[in-house]
Amino acid sequence: MQNEKQRITVTIYSQQYTVVGQEPPAHVKKVAKVVDQKMKEIKKLNPYLDTTRLAVLTAVNVVDDYMKVLQELEELKQERRTTGDE
Amino acid sequence: MQNEKQRITVTIYSQQYTVVGQEPPAHVKKVAKVVDQKMKEIKKLNPYLDTTRLAVLTAVNVVDDYMKVLQELEELKQERRTTGDE
Repeated sequence: MQNEKQRITVTIYSQQYTVVGQEPPAHVKKVAKVVDQKMKEIKKLNPYLDTTRLAVLTAVNVVDDYMKVLQELEELKQERRTTGDE
Repeated sequence: MQNEKQRITVTIYSQQYTVVGQEPPAHVKKVAKVVDQKMKEIKKLNPYLDTTRLAVLTAVNVVDDYMKVLQELEELKQERRTTGDE
């Protein structure tokens, strides 16, 4: 049951998307909500963007955040290694 | 000089985007490349997606990755607190 694929329908920027996967529905809905909110935030700052460019810039924004968190994580892991965890 | 805003033009999925900000150009270009690659990957798996839906699903994908890394970071920080760093 754990590995069964589920179809979850979410609404992002007034469009419906069906996500197929093994993630819990609550997680998929949370992710969709973050994307929806980010698109609306970026639209407010750039009202003339069409939806494709808006979605691409949203992805750019999130990859930027992602790379920063990833770097912080790497630094923490590195620090943990050098302070001697083994 | 450090805080001066720069305009950097990047190409994502054959479209040009101008990003205004204080980030080093190399970082902006790296972020754009990640988005471009992810869009192409998702397009391969879903050849009938239009560009808007493709970009939205790319953002969904990246937010999913982001939340997982963020959770790992929080766990590491929590672990560091409980093993007594203060």
